[in-house]
Amino acid sequence: MEETLELARLRHTDHPQLPLALRLIENTGVRTRHIVQPIEETLKHPGFEDRNRIYEREAKARVPAVVQRALDDAELLTTDIDVIVYVSCTGFMMPSLTAWLINDMGFDSTTRQLPIAQLGCAAGGAAINRAHDFCTAYPDANALIVACEFCSLCYQPTDIGVGSLLSNGLFGDGIAAAVVRGQGGTGVRLERNGSYLIPKTEEWIMYDVKATGFHFLLDKRVPATMEPLAPALRDLAETHGWDASDLDFYIVHAGGPRILDDLSTFLHVDRHAFRFSRATLTEYGNIASAVVLDALRRLFDEGGVQDRARGLLAGFGPGITAEMSLGRWQTADETRGVRQA
Amino acid sequence: MEETLELARLRHTDHPQLPLALRLIENTGVRTRHIVQPIEETLKHPGFEDRNRIYEREAKARVPAVVQRALDDAELLTTDIDVIVYVSCTGFMMPSLTAWLINDMGFDSTTRQLPIAQLGCAAGGAAINRAHDFCTAYPDANALIVACEFCSLCYQPTDIGVGSLLSNGLFGDGIAAAVVRGQGGTGVRLERNGSYLIPKTEEWIMYDVKATGFHFLLDKRVPATMEPLAPALRDLAETHGWDASDLDFYIVHAGGPRILDDLSTFLHVDRHAFRFSRATLTEYGNIASAVVLDALRRLFDEGGVQDRARGLLAGFGPGITAEMSLGRWQTADETRGVRQA
Repeated sequence: MEETLELARLRHTDHPQLPLALRLIENTGVRTRHIVQPIEETLKHPGFEDRNRIYEREAKARVPAVVQRALDDAELLTTDIDVIVYVSCTGFMMPSLTAWLINDMGFDSTTRQLPIAQLGCAAGGAAINRAHDFCTAYPDANALIVACEFCSLCYQPTDIGVGSLLSNGLFGDGIAAAVVRGQGGTGVRLERNGSYLIPKTEEWIMYDVKATGFHFLLDKRVPATMEPLAPALRDLAETHGWDASDLDFYIVHAGGPRILDDLSTFLHVDRHAFRFSRATLTEYGNIASAVVLDALRRLFDEGGVQDRARGLLAGFGPGITAEMSLGRWQTADETRGVRQA
Repeated sequence: MEETLELARLRHTDHPQLPLALRLIENTGVRTRHIVQPIEETLKHPGFEDRNRIYEREAKARVPAVVQRALDDAELLTTDIDVIVYVSCTGFMMPSLTAWLINDMGFDSTTRQLPIAQLGCAAGGAAINRAHDFCTAYPDANALIVACEFCSLCYQPTDIGVGSLLSNGLFGDGIAAAVVRGQGGTGVRLERNGSYLIPKTEEWIMYDVKATGFHFLLDKRVPATMEPLAPALRDLAETHGWDASDLDFYIVHAGGPRILDDLSTFLHVDRHAFRFSRATLTEYGNIASAVVLDALRRLFDEGGVQDRARGLLAGFGPGITAEMSLGRWQTADETRGVRQA
């Protein structure tokens, strides 16, 4: 945070709205972020082509170890995976990294590839939901989710609106992977998912695609979107016979501090419930589609919750779209020899 | 075709491999293509940003009517659709056009969005397969598939390798839409799907992403890929208890003439079986992910086949990936009042 504020002061000394930008950045609560390149390199703009090459190079260097850890945690081999859902909005490759991963890590040639590049921060939730759908269709299947976001490669030195300065101080880089097992395992047993698009907000979060790459546009109305989204979360829970205000755990996208505060307010849920998301934001910044997976990891690290505890997962992103799911905590019952379906 | 050959001669008079390029273009068998802009505009390169703006403008102008026709044919309203699978590799928007479509055409705010930009020509098959998976998970759901490909917007005047000249003479623009109904309707009742990635071919079809946009790279080994893919098609059919050489209809991606000829050879299937795909290629060129949907439309136009006739659908694209599905023709039995599940 100190480095970010110092850089903002240095680079935008004469910016008329510098004090506002500094205050907004400070208010994010982000203390540390990780970026794939040294800050000196990050601040350069070598062109869209080079940026994309760095994306590919860093993704290939870093994703396999993260994937391997997810597979190990799920006690599965690459050959047990039926579909790879790869979400990333900060680099563009065709074919997607899925093809390289299949070849490089020895996944079966018959593994389905589902690359999603256009759902932004909501894509972490979307990946969980599409993996859930797949395992619902094929109950013995296993889905691998990979979220690879190098937001720092979308830094655009010429974008100096307050929204851009705030984004520069908010987004971080991160890679996360998770496995959705069709059967067994420990974690959230997914029961229902849903999407919600807030009408007529498709220009509130968007990329302006230019020769210099993706330019992130953030409307100042975005931080207030939990008010219209909270009812969508409540509706999904109600359809499932649950009360969204009375769940045992909450794993939501930490786009910024206001999102977590407002969810607390509009869902009437104690702030403490959002500690996993807040910790991700504080320690990593907004790592886009990877936030929900990292917040979920923190729930695991805390030891999980009691068996059958009910929870909500939700990603929020461009559209404005919410990708939501409901599930119960499940602990693998090793003693029975057979894992719970 | 005549216009294309004439343009190639004019623009590449001194190209040492012009005769080869002309011969390759003639051999595609493409007679007509449709492009979203006049040829004079298409040949200009106003920059990636403008290209992408044209993509958005033309997609918004043209996609809704195609979607409406698909909904009408399926006898469904926008509010009956649960998921929109939007595939397109020739323009990049975030959020994807799905958000705009939901707002503009009045789809429910809870409609799932599944935009796929990185599966290229295989994405038509992938869209069918993911829609099938979704309806398998939720048997009463309906999926809308949209393939929007403006390949002409990826024309790169400075790419003058033989592969690029051939591509310039092969690809066309097209939009297609289809509905996968969970229950009822007339068409292919999807029964099984699968994917196959030919090992170590991920650089054979790819985009080089530059400041000038997507540069399509086509390896000269691509036309020969049906030899390794035919066994994958056979394997999928065998798993289903079917013989891939003995099906009643074939709807496959017509990437080029060699693909159809080779499939005929390696699957031991009469050339006539690929008439739908060949007609798409001849009349529209390679319209990427839209090919399989257009070829399928031609089967409908021919009156379909007898009830329960067995068929194969397959898209091929970067990876090199095949997205394959098997299904039986089903005619809605209106007289019974209840549609067949």
